[in-house]
Amino acid sequence: MTAARPPRLADFDLARWMSQRLDSVESALGRWVGPAGSLPPSLAEPMRYAVLDGGKRLRPLLVLAACEAVQGHEAAALRAACAVELIHAYSLVHDDMPCMDNDVLRRGKPTVHVQFGQASAMLAGDALQALAFELLTPDDAEVPPPVQAQLCRMLARAAGGQGMAGGQAIDLAHVGQRIDALQLHEMHRLKTGALLLASVQMGAVCGQPDAQAMAALSEYGRTVGLAFQVVDDILDVTADSHTLGKTAGKDAAQDKPTFVSLMGLRQSQNYAQELLSQAQASLRQSGLSETRALQALADKLVNRAF
Amino acid sequence: MTAARPPRLADFDLARWMSQRLDSVESALGRWVGPAGSLPPSLAEPMRYAVLDGGKRLRPLLVLAACEAVQGHEAAALRAACAVELIHAYSLVHDDMPCMDNDVLRRGKPTVHVQFGQASAMLAGDALQALAFELLTPDDAEVPPPVQAQLCRMLARAAGGQGMAGGQAIDLAHVGQRIDALQLHEMHRLKTGALLLASVQMGAVCGQPDAQAMAALSEYGRTVGLAFQVVDDILDVTADSHTLGKTAGKDAAQDKPTFVSLMGLRQSQNYAQELLSQAQASLRQSGLSETRALQALADKLVNRAF
Repeated sequence: MTAARPPRLADFDLARWMSQRLDSVESALGRWVGPAGSLPPSLAEPMRYAVLDGGKRLRPLLVLAACEAVQGHEAAALRAACAVELIHAYSLVHDDMPCMDNDVLRRGKPTVHVQFGQASAMLAGDALQALAFELLTPDDAEVPPPVQAQLCRMLARAAGGQGMAGGQAIDLAHVGQRIDALQLHEMHRLKTGALLLASVQMGAVCGQPDAQAMAALSEYGRTVGLAFQVVDDILDVTADSHTLGKTAGKDAAQDKPTFVSLMGLRQSQNYAQELLSQAQASLRQSGLSETRALQALADKLVNRAF
Repeated sequence: MTAARPPRLADFDLARWMSQRLDSVESALGRWVGPAGSLPPSLAEPMRYAVLDGGKRLRPLLVLAACEAVQGHEAAALRAACAVELIHAYSLVHDDMPCMDNDVLRRGKPTVHVQFGQASAMLAGDALQALAFELLTPDDAEVPPPVQAQLCRMLARAAGGQGMAGGQAIDLAHVGQRIDALQLHEMHRLKTGALLLASVQMGAVCGQPDAQAMAALSEYGRTVGLAFQVVDDILDVTADSHTLGKTAGKDAAQDKPTFVSLMGLRQSQNYAQELLSQAQASLRQSGLSETRALQALADKLVNRAF
């Protein structure tokens, strides 16, 4: 018998893989985000509240899985994983504020501004963004400086006006308006897709993938990022707040354009499965031998219930 | 006759030096901050409004002067100069918001949230912070990657919880409270001092200063940073809103601790002059031959009327 390529997913224990990686990520975040005595307590507390003890850590898992696929530098990938999560966490803090989505529940807890006040929430978000770039640039030789620079470049682009912040601006400008499928894709490509894509790419540059592998991983990241948002829109309609850990039905309540409002529930579900198939196909074209974690994560992400 | 060392400041035309450097900085900011077509207009507009056509550009000038003192890499310094200014600009946008200082006037214009709404102001600030790190990490070879990484490290630390954001959190926690001189120094060391110090240090690492020069420039940066805040507190009492381009007397109105409230006006003025002398002494100890721009900037900053 010859080994199948890619390895059969049945051989892969995703729960065990995730549990080990999540331990590393949680432990690193606990060490790096406002450790005791390092920051003014009035800043450290909302920062830690926003980041620790909650969240699916999808982005860090994508970073680590991509790094493992290219047999990259583990210490660099752990820093990249945490940095991406800090950007994600800060965006949620700011997004939940009264001047944006005015949300009071996140990960089953009061949102940061409800717990600590708006000023502290805004500052904590600002400090989390800075901390992301600080994590990427340790002054020992743990991560080679050219890799540090490349990670900063990727994260800055994904977080800024041509990425996440740009997508949020488009979202904000279109509340209550009808938009077409092209505009909806563009908004999500920026708002959530850019950071998910960057997660995969940042994991990849912790190794030295050839051009074919890098292109295939990027395509995987783009497709998974889009699928994530389609599923998010589906769950906003089909799940309840308790299961989601955040307010369900808020897209409809705020009259936000979503894939479900645009193409209906059944079509959206089909679309998510189609994107999953595309993501798996990209991995098969990568030329990489160990992509099981990436495969399993994509599957879990699309078929998740929360 | 032998040349005096340091060169006599009378030989130095600061106005001409500043005019040339400001032209470069304004032109670069205009190119790099939300150029037409690159970002969603609803994000690009508040970003450009927050950054362009206003501001003394003190931090960029310090970056460029420090780089020239060490005969450093000009293109790197211009990027660093703009990146530091973007961090400063974003902090003003967020600081002015209703949940923080609730200020309506900045640089003689309505503040960003007054002009564009709070959501856009918050997002524009967030995107400006990301853009700062993007500017520092161009993907051509214009700036050597190890320098890129070092610049990101310095800026991230100066902007985050152990720098500017940390100082703002302390400030916020102490409104209406009495604090002592030590606490006031610590707050300002973080809130405004860290970014001013980083400006000098980032300019310096665009060259390859020896340890003596780096230490002396850092001491200059620390002292100038503190002097800047002392003068700011003085001007809040002695100048009017029109001259300042922002609301005068707001520290007293908000019952914020300042150097003037702590040590009185005359003592504060003496303290500023003493810090200026210390800054100039640091430059003399740097071993660098061309520090006239740094000398003249310190003098102008302490003896400014706005």
